[in-house]
Amino acid sequence: MSKPMQEQKFYLSQKEIPRQWYNIQADMPNPLKPPLNPKTGKPISPDDLAPVFPMNLIEQEASTERWIDIPEEVLEKLLLWRPTPLQRAYALEKFLNTPAKIYFKDEGTSPAGSHKPNTAVAQAYYNREFGIKRLTTETGAGQWGSALSLGCSLFGLECKVYMVRVSFQQKPYRKMLMRLWGANCIPSPSEETNFGKKVLQEDPDCPGSLGMAISEAIEDAVTSENTRYSLGSVLNHVMLHQTIIGLEAEKQFKALGDYPDVVIGCVGGGSNFAGIAFPFVKEKIAGKEVQVIGAEPSACPTLTRAPFGYDFGDTAQSTPLLPMYSLGHSFMPPGIHAGGLRYHGAAPLVSQLAEDKLIEARNYDQLQTYQAGVTWARVQGSVVAPETTHALAAVFEEAKKAKEEGKEKTILFNLSGHGLMDLTGYEAYLDGKLSDVSLPEEEIEKSKQLISKYPKP
Amino acid sequence: MSKPMQEQKFYLSQKEIPRQWYNIQADMPNPLKPPLNPKTGKPISPDDLAPVFPMNLIEQEASTERWIDIPEEVLEKLLLWRPTPLQRAYALEKFLNTPAKIYFKDEGTSPAGSHKPNTAVAQAYYNREFGIKRLTTETGAGQWGSALSLGCSLFGLECKVYMVRVSFQQKPYRKMLMRLWGANCIPSPSEETNFGKKVLQEDPDCPGSLGMAISEAIEDAVTSENTRYSLGSVLNHVMLHQTIIGLEAEKQFKALGDYPDVVIGCVGGGSNFAGIAFPFVKEKIAGKEVQVIGAEPSACPTLTRAPFGYDFGDTAQSTPLLPMYSLGHSFMPPGIHAGGLRYHGAAPLVSQLAEDKLIEARNYDQLQTYQAGVTWARVQGSVVAPETTHALAAVFEEAKKAKEEGKEKTILFNLSGHGLMDLTGYEAYLDGKLSDVSLPEEEIEKSKQLISKYPKP
Repeated sequence: MSKPMQEQKFYLSQKEIPRQWYNIQADMPNPLKPPLNPKTGKPISPDDLAPVFPMNLIEQEASTERWIDIPEEVLEKLLLWRPTPLQRAYALEKFLNTPAKIYFKDEGTSPAGSHKPNTAVAQAYYNREFGIKRLTTETGAGQWGSALSLGCSLFGLECKVYMVRVSFQQKPYRKMLMRLWGANCIPSPSEETNFGKKVLQEDPDCPGSLGMAISEAIEDAVTSENTRYSLGSVLNHVMLHQTIIGLEAEKQFKALGDYPDVVIGCVGGGSNFAGIAFPFVKEKIAGKEVQVIGAEPSACPTLTRAPFGYDFGDTAQSTPLLPMYSLGHSFMPPGIHAGGLRYHGAAPLVSQLAEDKLIEARNYDQLQTYQAGVTWARVQGSVVAPETTHALAAVFEEAKKAKEEGKEKTILFNLSGHGLMDLTGYEAYLDGKLSDVSLPEEEIEKSKQLISKYPKP
Repeated sequence: MSKPMQEQKFYLSQKEIPRQWYNIQADMPNPLKPPLNPKTGKPISPDDLAPVFPMNLIEQEASTERWIDIPEEVLEKLLLWRPTPLQRAYALEKFLNTPAKIYFKDEGTSPAGSHKPNTAVAQAYYNREFGIKRLTTETGAGQWGSALSLGCSLFGLECKVYMVRVSFQQKPYRKMLMRLWGANCIPSPSEETNFGKKVLQEDPDCPGSLGMAISEAIEDAVTSENTRYSLGSVLNHVMLHQTIIGLEAEKQFKALGDYPDVVIGCVGGGSNFAGIAFPFVKEKIAGKEVQVIGAEPSACPTLTRAPFGYDFGDTAQSTPLLPMYSLGHSFMPPGIHAGGLRYHGAAPLVSQLAEDKLIEARNYDQLQTYQAGVTWARVQGSVVAPETTHALAAVFEEAKKAKEEGKEKTILFNLSGHGLMDLTGYEAYLDGKLSDVSLPEEEIEKSKQLISKYPKP
């Protein structure tokens, strides 16, 4: 005799996978401000971007079509791991003694262990379609570099990854993973670009930075044959490709006869957050009551404390000016373990929605986030990425609130990636070696001053 | 307009998860020979094992009931990640240009990344039911230690893991993972047991071995209060708990209207192989035509080249004598990267079925297996454990044969675990630093001589 079983995992059959991405540009009450040419202060044209990105992706970047077909070949690759399950965290609900129902999408089940391959596969495809043979990119902790290596491997493109030197030395596993997928991953600054050579001449032991690695990757792309550059976050087409997460979740909730009251994701550049959130923001714009929360580190509180303005996407000022919340392109966040959340800005689409109060943001300190991550591992079993622990901190907070209010809220969050290759942060936390890192007000003032030099959106 | 989609992943809803494990002891044409007391040469009694294992597991070990109910609480934990999907490797089929249909069960989707938690969770439950508060075990590469840490965490037991010192130093990530799940993992030999102290007195720099770690874990269990020992492979109840893999696959094939012609798993101690294979061996015993293949390393060719006889399960001779294929309990396999396949014996159940020709075995050299693993990663996207690459080598062989014979064979293999924490082996392979390691005939002769000292099964 068995008692009725509580299903925890809800699958979507592959036949039911969404066939189109959702483009929120079609529905925003205030349209996105255009990226500006920093020299002229005028909106950039598609041609300005042509040396860097293939024209089909540039067109997608600017599209205001609501639904964009997912090409069959992209779908075929996504089906290697998608749809990801929608899972209910009964054990955590019980542990927190909350009336809230806690659901999550598990993006850690992709081959690279995070949501990043959703766009890597699509970008590799569009580049191949455009006749491109080789992609370059930068990577910090290595998540994006490995995702693009995978995407290129599946579509037969060459891939060159400039990895921030200090990470290259500290994270040998990520480098091996890229190599296994056939990519060429080298430490940045390198001797392979003029920019890298110049940096190394001045400082042969330079540890590198994401800004430097971007500069090298772009220089390589625009000076090499049949080569383009690829970016793993921030841009509109990246957000677009990630919406498959939320679209699947919508279908899964429909099958369950439920709908989230609260949708939560962590925010660095913004892509995993956009991926789970935008399909629900669409309904919110249409009048549905749903709360959408971005969780960021208090060490890098872009949406919660930075000004909204035009700023460069990278330290080296090689991108157009983008309209976004930004701590300033020269901002160097404290060295927290959630490397993926240490970006100075937030995607223009996410920023505009925050400006329009369609999404809200909260920041969390790292002791609180790691505590949530450890609890999760011991209660739910799986190990989440340090980035994801920020979403967890918000989930814990909402679950507690539901308990206080006695409300049976439905919470959905994005488990953006597993943490099996990021265990050193957990160890430092368990050793009591971490402390809270909050940003002093002076830093925010500096950001405001820097941003005020550029045009107002 | 989209062309009809090829589904690659076949889910089983959680409601359809098997509610019973399959015990092959009920159906074996020749029953298992009993384990012997090495001192008396007579079959051991349950009481002999009582200081080491809880009585409910000892009873399960000896049971000949065909179906054994999975307790509800165990099921609830298994549902954190089970059923695992049955997946079809279309991309690999295309790459190999084979008419064979290649399916796999993905056990890498468990929180610890392998099949091991299937039994860890069950063993933690049965121990807790018996009033045990604390489990001890040994671990080499760390897969089993982390799985048991997870199991204990989910059932609120303390867990002590003796990890072979050289692995403890070389694999810090595994150690961190165990700690994250609340376990106490220490290097063996340690100062915490009499055996460990003795070893360290003679050799303070002793790198440790699995045999030593077993001895320490057993000594700790039998001398501590409310403590028992837990083993991750070899024993009958471990094989039993793993059969959920094959039972799920059976249901998934039924839903597909297909059935495998060939079932493949890699073999170390034998548990992941037993898990996928036994439900199909059941049908084979009943007359169905299905080929069942165990794939092992040529560096440790237990089923393919070792004698069948009674031998100790561990180097330190602390276990009963078990009837099995064995290279000898003092055998030290060459240092290949597939640490989980370096066991000198094979589970008695697997051994008896091999002896009765119900399963067959093949061995593969490590260049061939790593080549298969690299191809898999680049074509199918995911990174498999070094152990799993042995199953892949057999799959490649069978797919090639199907091509030569022009047969549309259905192949099923067990993807026993992911390799995200085992990338150093891949790197060594890509660097050209690996070579084939085949066992010379003299080694086999030594095994035969050693085994011949013990009773004949």
